[in-house]
Amino acid sequence: METNVITLKPLHDRVVVLPAAAEKTSAGGIIIPDTAKEKPQKGTVVAVGNGKKDEPMTVKVNDQVLYGKYAGQEIEIEGKEYLIMRESDIVAVL
Amino acid sequence: METNVITLKPLHDRVVVLPAAAEKTSAGGIIIPDTAKEKPQKGTVVAVGNGKKDEPMTVKVNDQVLYGKYAGQEIEIEGKEYLIMRESDIVAVL
Amino acid sequence: METNVITLKPLHDRVVVLPAAAEKTSAGGIIIPDTAKEKPQKGTVVAVGNGKKDEPMTVKVNDQVLYGKYAGQEIEIEGKEYLIMRESDIVAVL
Amino acid sequence: METNVITLKPLHDRVVVLPAAAEKTSAGGIIIPDTAKEKPQKGTVVAVGNGKKDEPMTVKVNDQVLYGKYAGQEIEIEGKEYLIMRESDIVAVL
Amino acid sequence: METNVITLKPLHDRVVVLPAAAEKTSAGGIIIPDTAKEKPQKGTVVAVGNGKKDEPMTVKVNDQVLYGKYAGQEIEIEGKEYLIMRESDIVAVL
Amino acid sequence: METNVITLKPLHDRVVVLPAAAEKTSAGGIIIPDTAKEKPQKGTVVAVGNGKKDEPMTVKVNDQVLYGKYAGQEIEIEGKEYLIMRESDIVAVL
Amino acid sequence: METNVITLKPLHDRVVVLPAAAEKTSAGGIIIPDTAKEKPQKGTVVAVGNGKKDEPMTVKVNDQVLYGKYAGQEIEIEGKEYLIMRESDIVAVL
Repeated sequence: METNVITLKPLHDRVVVLPAAAEKTSAGGIIIPDTAKEKPQKGTVVAVGNGKKDEPMTVKVNDQVLYGKYAGQEIEIEGKEYLIMRESDIVAVL
Repeated sequence: METNVITLKPLHDRVVVLPAAAEKTSAGGIIIPDTAKEKPQKGTVVAVGNGKKDEPMTVKVNDQVLYGKYAGQEIEIEGKEYLIMRESDIVAVL
Repeated sequence: METNVITLKPLHDRVVVLPAAAEKTSAGGIIIPDTAKEKPQKGTVVAVGNGKKDEPMTVKVNDQVLYGKYAGQEIEIEGKEYLIMRESDIVAVL
Repeated sequence: METNVITLKPLHDRVVVLPAAAEKTSAGGIIIPDTAKEKPQKGTVVAVGNGKKDEPMTVKVNDQVLYGKYAGQEIEIEGKEYLIMRESDIVAVL
Repeated sequence: METNVITLKPLHDRVVVLPAAAEKTSAGGIIIPDTAKEKPQKGTVVAVGNGKKDEPMTVKVNDQVLYGKYAGQEIEIEGKEYLIMRESDIVAVL
Repeated sequence: METNVITLKPLHDRVVVLPAAAEKTSAGGIIIPDTAKEKPQKGTVVAVGNGKKDEPMTVKVNDQVLYGKYAGQEIEIEGKEYLIMRESDIVAVL
Repeated sequence: METNVITLKPLHDRVVVLPAAAEKTSAGGIIIPDTAKEKPQKGTVVAVGNGKKDEPMTVKVNDQVLYGKYAGQEIEIEGKEYLIMRESDIVAVL
């Protein structure tokens, strides 16, 4: 996988995630259930905010994460679609 | 029962639960009431987050737990269906 | 009344209550009003959680309690129906 | 007025109130307005909880109180109807 | 104006207000706007609670106050109609 | 502009604002957008409360302010219409 | 780009943003996704409040920011349309 470098700095507890292509089996053996296949719920963290007051961030750049199906807002950076979401929208790190 | 090992790390106060097959009587004598039989409410904890700030987790891996009927999101890991939920969705440890 | 022993451990501020049979007059002289007779609001505490952070529990096992009419979730243990509810659903100890 | 003794212990910030009969003029000269006459809003406190954490109770047994028209849940003890409500449902002590 | 003495003690942050008669111009030159004339929004404080925890009361007995149009509950004491409301329903002291 | 003196004391975090006449361009060059022209959103602060506990007020008398279109309640003092609102309804000082 | 100087002082945690013209590719390579093109979500911060109690502001004047599609209120200053919004409506700094 190529390096993920973006110049965007998320505010507070937000993270930018590059959604994985909708695939049946991932490297770590995670399979997105059928009902969710049309919109991937797995992705790679590419940018992380500084956290909220007294609450540092848990995820870091390059973490593979699972996130809620309707999490985040879409933004497009240099032709690629990303999602910007709050860390609380991320349910697990693979 | 075989060992439950998954590589997924839930964030904050989330836990991953392997739902029990819908059965009439469990090992501990707990019977899921008839109205809930189509979707099991009992399961085994297979992964636990680090808790929220100043609130460590109560449940641990291999705990048999009861959880609310609509708790959690389904995820599939190596062909098995799991639920990822907040610890507050768990009502009791068997 | 026979001993109430269950192996289930409620999480946090939850309690397990064995609902009393819908009767007209209880031992302590409490009568459930007519409009509530089809679902008993009185019961016996059979298991108690460890409380929430900095908030120990007030009720204890074997307390006779009154609880809100729609409180709790039903669970069945060894053929008996119990309710698992938050302590805040309990309005009084008899 | 006869002594008000009940064995019920309200939890936390709850109180048990014996509603006054719907009367036009009370001892203290308080008249419940016409629109509220069908359900008395005045009563006598007969049992008081221990309060919430760091918030002791203000009302005490035998206080004559005014309370919101839809406050509390009805319970019947030895043939008399009482209301069990939170202290915040009480607006004033006569 | 005659002395305003009532025996009622409001709980916590509540105050009892004697509504002014709906008049066009008040002593202090305040005119209630036309749309509000059918229900006065000005009144005199006749009783004050002890405030909430760590929040003493700001208004005091005999203060002339303006309050929100739908603030409070009506109560009748010795033939006069009063309003009992929270201090936060009072917007200003004249 | 004439001196703005009123005797009304707003409670807590409330301020009294004299709305500006609906004009196209103000002294400071601010133009209220067309869609808001029928109800001015600019005004002059004429009275300020003492603030909430541990939160002193930011605006002061004679500040020119912008406020939300539906902010506040109308009151009339000596023939002039004012708005009484919370400081949080004010978005900026000119 | 010309200097952005405005005399308006946002209150508390609010910021004034000059929305970018709806363009397909920005200087930093960010492309607003097609579905959002009719209303730009990118802009330049031109004024910043003093923050809320114990929460200093993160963005500063001249920051290029992305903000939620329905964020803020429109105001017009010297013929230009601006948005005044809370810092929490800003999702990232470019």
